[in-house]
Amino acid sequence: MRERVTASRESTGMARSLQLGIGDDCAILRPPPGHRVLVTTDFSLETVHFRRDWHTPESVGHRCLARGLSDIAAMGGQPLAAFLSLALPPELAKLRRGQPSWRDRFLAGLLALAGRHGVPLAGGDTARSPQMPLRAGATGLALADIVLVGSVPRRRALLRSGARPGDRLYVTGHLGGAAAELNRLATRPRRFRGRTQPDPAVPNPHPHLFPQPRLAVGAWLLGNRRATAAIDSSDGLSTDLDHICQESAVSAVVQAAALPLHPLVLQASAAESLRFALHGGEDYELLFTASPKMRVPPSIAGVPIACIGHVRKPMHGQPRMVLVEQGRERPLLAAGWEH
Amino acid sequence: MRERVTASRESTGMARSLQLGIGDDCAILRPPPGHRVLVTTDFSLETVHFRRDWHTPESVGHRCLARGLSDIAAMGGQPLAAFLSLALPPELAKLRRGQPSWRDRFLAGLLALAGRHGVPLAGGDTARSPQMPLRAGATGLALADIVLVGSVPRRRALLRSGARPGDRLYVTGHLGGAAAELNRLATRPRRFRGRTQPDPAVPNPHPHLFPQPRLAVGAWLLGNRRATAAIDSSDGLSTDLDHICQESAVSAVVQAAALPLHPLVLQASAAESLRFALHGGEDYELLFTASPKMRVPPSIAGVPIACIGHVRKPMHGQPRMVLVEQGRERPLLAAGWEH
Repeated sequence: MRERVTASRESTGMARSLQLGIGDDCAILRPPPGHRVLVTTDFSLETVHFRRDWHTPESVGHRCLARGLSDIAAMGGQPLAAFLSLALPPELAKLRRGQPSWRDRFLAGLLALAGRHGVPLAGGDTARSPQMPLRAGATGLALADIVLVGSVPRRRALLRSGARPGDRLYVTGHLGGAAAELNRLATRPRRFRGRTQPDPAVPNPHPHLFPQPRLAVGAWLLGNRRATAAIDSSDGLSTDLDHICQESAVSAVVQAAALPLHPLVLQASAAESLRFALHGGEDYELLFTASPKMRVPPSIAGVPIACIGHVRKPMHGQPRMVLVEQGRERPLLAAGWEH
Repeated sequence: MRERVTASRESTGMARSLQLGIGDDCAILRPPPGHRVLVTTDFSLETVHFRRDWHTPESVGHRCLARGLSDIAAMGGQPLAAFLSLALPPELAKLRRGQPSWRDRFLAGLLALAGRHGVPLAGGDTARSPQMPLRAGATGLALADIVLVGSVPRRRALLRSGARPGDRLYVTGHLGGAAAELNRLATRPRRFRGRTQPDPAVPNPHPHLFPQPRLAVGAWLLGNRRATAAIDSSDGLSTDLDHICQESAVSAVVQAAALPLHPLVLQASAAESLRFALHGGEDYELLFTASPKMRVPPSIAGVPIACIGHVRKPMHGQPRMVLVEQGRERPLLAAGWEH
């Protein structure tokens, strides 16, 4: 790495697994004995993954890290360290009338989430983003790439490929909230952003702006050997379930009535609700399967768990996934995030 | 990771250290027993790190990976796996009159270097790059971020902080070639690109376009306990030596006459030659220190090694680095790549 983002030893606590952080050619990590190393990388590109007029800098930083942490959670792993490559136009690094810069606020959002999960920011790269006259005062776009390195006890990682016919299908938290919130940001950003008093009855009032990676749930599932397969619902339930079905060579049945809809979804029409919950994506909940012999509690680490269907043998000529609505099966197509 | 770049199992050989590559939420790596994990990330952004009209796609892919491999080399480590985040405008992913696309050629350049060093491409992320009308036929820029994960025996990594007064200062290969070649690309790109017959007497005829990371030298230095400190000359000799001096709390003396100039440098004026060699950067050679009691051979793994000076105690009021030219000392300032 050429240059490094500002250190986080103070802000996130120096993890014991980080032997050498910012300040040499590489960072040095010490995974726990008997563990394997997990690696995942995710882009956060302005205009592709976020918009400066919809997302606060804190939200962009939070979401950037949350994407990587959620991948670690989906393997049942523990995060060891994060690495951030960040390219900014100079105006985003400048103080504005004595107020923190966009970069400062971005890092504050990222480090707040990192601190909550004890993950040190251990390095990365910084650059000036490609120069281009965009609009008044903007000379380039904010470009970030987050790398999460984690660890998992050997032979214990929760894979997508372990689901077996008969397994039950579970999901953490609530579905569709991120899509519903994004929809509101897109249609009435100003009014929505003004809502500063979140409803305390709502589990996560900002599922799109501040998704909560389910690390504790993933670790519990791994530690208690409860899950046969897991994935995070980043691309939308239908698309992520399809990944499990394909990797495990199974079919799946989803009960529409069992889907735990986020309160934000309930404000939409019935058809839109189901679309948000099934295909919306970016909820960063865990979707997992477990043997019917295994007890799965109604909440894990404070997060509600819903049984939303089951896994069965694939049958020739039958759709890979079906949705049961009012007693009738219909094909469920993977219609989430398209790559 | 959301989406993954095309697999490389075939093209680079499946490394034993890669347990699970593309196709789950994270890749799973198995570092050798008793080893620590190295991580480094580096951006390669169009218009910042490369230009589509100066660099062939193969060169961009090669340079992208070489930057990360060189960081692993500078720690004396072995690369375990590479992860690539790649955002492209759609026109760069398209075939052109049946010819391979820019992306195909970029990946070919990257994978050729990966194959030479036995490094699997184990995952990453892909995205459409931010859309912007740039010029005829171009709708966005190519943006890449490379992550290298490596391993090093515990307590053995070559750090920047281990240089001691009395140590000798060495450099691998040749200096200034990358800056000289870049200078030629900038001043007469067409003519230069036409040189398809490299002079066999020149060690690496394209030090800027195709730098060679010194992994074998780094591994030899670590394995034979010959180096007290090491860094790669990515930012320019003066700036990288300054990093060693600062991290090791020492001063350094460089002999101008001992600098191993790349043949491309010799075509420039004397003043320009020295500037290219001292401050040019991107040579991706190793700069290391060794005790005077240790024998350092004139070549390691086929790469020539030059002793270019020594390390001494820092003295109050004296410059941290000096250059000796025709018997006279003058201050040497860190004037390489500015972050």
